[in-house]
Amino acid sequence: MATVRLLADEELSPQAREVFADIRATRKSDFVNNFWRALAHDPVTLKRTWESVKQVMGPGALEPKVKEMIYIAVSIAHACPYCIHSHTESARAKGMSEAEYREVLAIVGMASETNRLVTALGVPIDEEYEVG
Amino acid sequence: MATVRLLADEELSPQAREVFADIRATRKSDFVNNFWRALAHDPVTLKRTWESVKQVMGPGALEPKVKEMIYIAVSIAHACPYCIHSHTESARAKGMSEAEYREVLAIVGMASETNRLVTALGVPIDEEYEVG
Amino acid sequence: MATVRLLADEELSPQAREVFADIRATRKSDFVNNFWRALAHDPVTLKRTWESVKQVMGPGALEPKVKEMIYIAVSIAHACPYCIHSHTESARAKGMSEAEYREVLAIVGMASETNRLVTALGVPIDEEYEVG
Amino acid sequence: MATVRLLADEELSPQAREVFADIRATRKSDFVNNFWRALAHDPVTLKRTWESVKQVMGPGALEPKVKEMIYIAVSIAHACPYCIHSHTESARAKGMSEAEYREVLAIVGMASETNRLVTALGVPIDEEYEVG
Amino acid sequence: MATVRLLADEELSPQAREVFADIRATRKSDFVNNFWRALAHDPVTLKRTWESVKQVMGPGALEPKVKEMIYIAVSIAHACPYCIHSHTESARAKGMSEAEYREVLAIVGMASETNRLVTALGVPIDEEYEVG
Amino acid sequence: MATVRLLADEELSPQAREVFADIRATRKSDFVNNFWRALAHDPVTLKRTWESVKQVMGPGALEPKVKEMIYIAVSIAHACPYCIHSHTESARAKGMSEAEYREVLAIVGMASETNRLVTALGVPIDEEYEVG
Repeated sequence: MATVRLLADEELSPQAREVFADIRATRKSDFVNNFWRALAHDPVTLKRTWESVKQVMGPGALEPKVKEMIYIAVSIAHACPYCIHSHTESARAKGMSEAEYREVLAIVGMASETNRLVTALGVPIDEEYEVG
Repeated sequence: MATVRLLADEELSPQAREVFADIRATRKSDFVNNFWRALAHDPVTLKRTWESVKQVMGPGALEPKVKEMIYIAVSIAHACPYCIHSHTESARAKGMSEAEYREVLAIVGMASETNRLVTALGVPIDEEYEVG
Repeated sequence: MATVRLLADEELSPQAREVFADIRATRKSDFVNNFWRALAHDPVTLKRTWESVKQVMGPGALEPKVKEMIYIAVSIAHACPYCIHSHTESARAKGMSEAEYREVLAIVGMASETNRLVTALGVPIDEEYEVG
Repeated sequence: MATVRLLADEELSPQAREVFADIRATRKSDFVNNFWRALAHDPVTLKRTWESVKQVMGPGALEPKVKEMIYIAVSIAHACPYCIHSHTESARAKGMSEAEYREVLAIVGMASETNRLVTALGVPIDEEYEVG
Repeated sequence: MATVRLLADEELSPQAREVFADIRATRKSDFVNNFWRALAHDPVTLKRTWESVKQVMGPGALEPKVKEMIYIAVSIAHACPYCIHSHTESARAKGMSEAEYREVLAIVGMASETNRLVTALGVPIDEEYEVG
Repeated sequence: MATVRLLADEELSPQAREVFADIRATRKSDFVNNFWRALAHDPVTLKRTWESVKQVMGPGALEPKVKEMIYIAVSIAHACPYCIHSHTESARAKGMSEAEYREVLAIVGMASETNRLVTALGVPIDEEYEVG
């Protein structure tokens, strides 16, 4: 169930069609997942979002699989099942081992616990953590 | 401001004192940050939490700095300023470069945006993401 | 799946029946959605919640469709699929155009990104924003 | 307190300087708030974020003050005090009346309550809300 | 810092004055905390909110201190320091022991961890948990 | 749908098998719910999590059903349907009456509303709430 219909390739506007072509070329795969098919109703946001994802998740200082792990962590904390499933898949495709995946989950769980304990106790920030 | 007083070393119960000694030995540093001083009112939770942190954040498949980056990501999504400050500091101490830090923030921001767009649109999970 | 059974009209207590009658009269429609059928197990909370919704979402300074857009925004940030679906439907019924809907989603996504960046960076509030 | 130092105008890199110039020109004001001064350490994210904000919050189908109200709503749900303060100020500057502000807050509060009740009860989505 | 000025008793509108009188009478105390002084700019929401708090937190099936503990738990998960501080104080005033307080915090921390693990793993609901 | 397969009893590693045996002995029931079957891929986290749950939710100062109510409250605020369903079931099994359940939901809803109002208004913490 969705708040908009998912668009098939033949229903795309010319601008959305261009973005889909770039998604396929960048990922070297014909598969375009449902997120983009839902977003395609708004070619402006589709294009802006895809350009940002391409830039942020593209080559950089961090390994691709580490980038995906951080994405997974955020998606769990935001309670987004779709995002969790799609980025767990991406992380595995980019080389995340099962041992690494276990550690990601253990850290997310642990951090959730300590985050809430800190908040509950109203712990003041140590001056040792102050920046410049 | 906190909901409990932060305990000084000389106010610790014997069990809390033992945990503090292990924190210092493990971290090879005399500094014990405020979180543990607030948690020390409850030696049972103090001990259980420290043991878990030590296990989860200790040596494993992921680099220590990557573990801290995931911790930071979760702490941002949970809106915990103390946690963000302390783990940004830890990540830097464990070798996170400024270039890597910038990418962590860019990913967290981007994932927050796409997480909410996916949720807004009610995107159904692609069957390609199904496991076993 | 739910934690309580949805109540059919003939299962309502007299107090719940009265609230349902007012929902139908206020909305000029016989349709009563599942939220109220789940809440009807507790006639006190049912009545209080309905009275509040009627007051808050009723005529005021803001246009009805703008009120629904704000409701949608909150529901997305709270990860409530039911709420998103029902209020997207209400907003459309009250005149939200597809162009307006696209802007709502773009703002929610954007704000989510900047919210998390601000939190990540621990940005201090500018004194220009101080009130009184 | 922040995780990075706020940059003064004279500390900006050339690319950040350009973005600041555009912020000033677009807003017709010399004031650049702390968020951009914290983000300026990363000129790439600074530029991308500013371009997105300019596009999303710029002229469109929704009134500027309505856009700010939606931004406020999201910022409250994400517990971001900085964002709440800065966008409440922006909304007022763009014409939000005190009566409208009161309604924004009442809707956000109400939606938070009903969002959590719906989630608590696990209410299934009515088929009347299904799209296409 | 706040988005509105806190109102002193002599600045209250007649309707807000009445609500303050009822707060004082109900609580048998002259002290009116800042939340109500901020909310007093909107007498309608002030009255509706106070009436709801009085009803929901008043005598019922659960002990007053247990009601406050649940309030604390929600406030922690929503990252609201003001709410945490005020309801921790209320819970103590209503008899919550330090041993009970420790258990509240331990449960909130633990539930946060397991909540996120469940979400991360996308665990399907056991049919044993189905209602009616 | 899940990100891992649920493990049947005969697929468990020896360490996971031991944890399952302890879950069954502690709960005096043969039923092991899906959460543990998903977590069983990681025997270390499985064991640590179960030991913590057993300690935190075990006998203490608070009644078992009150502990479950707090768990439910947190799970609602974290938008975890699985957690809500399983702990609503546990709370009922431990004696939570329908009247008590109604009050839990009413408090969670109410606290969500006031939490967000407080956050929206940026209410400063009263000095009366300061500790020590």
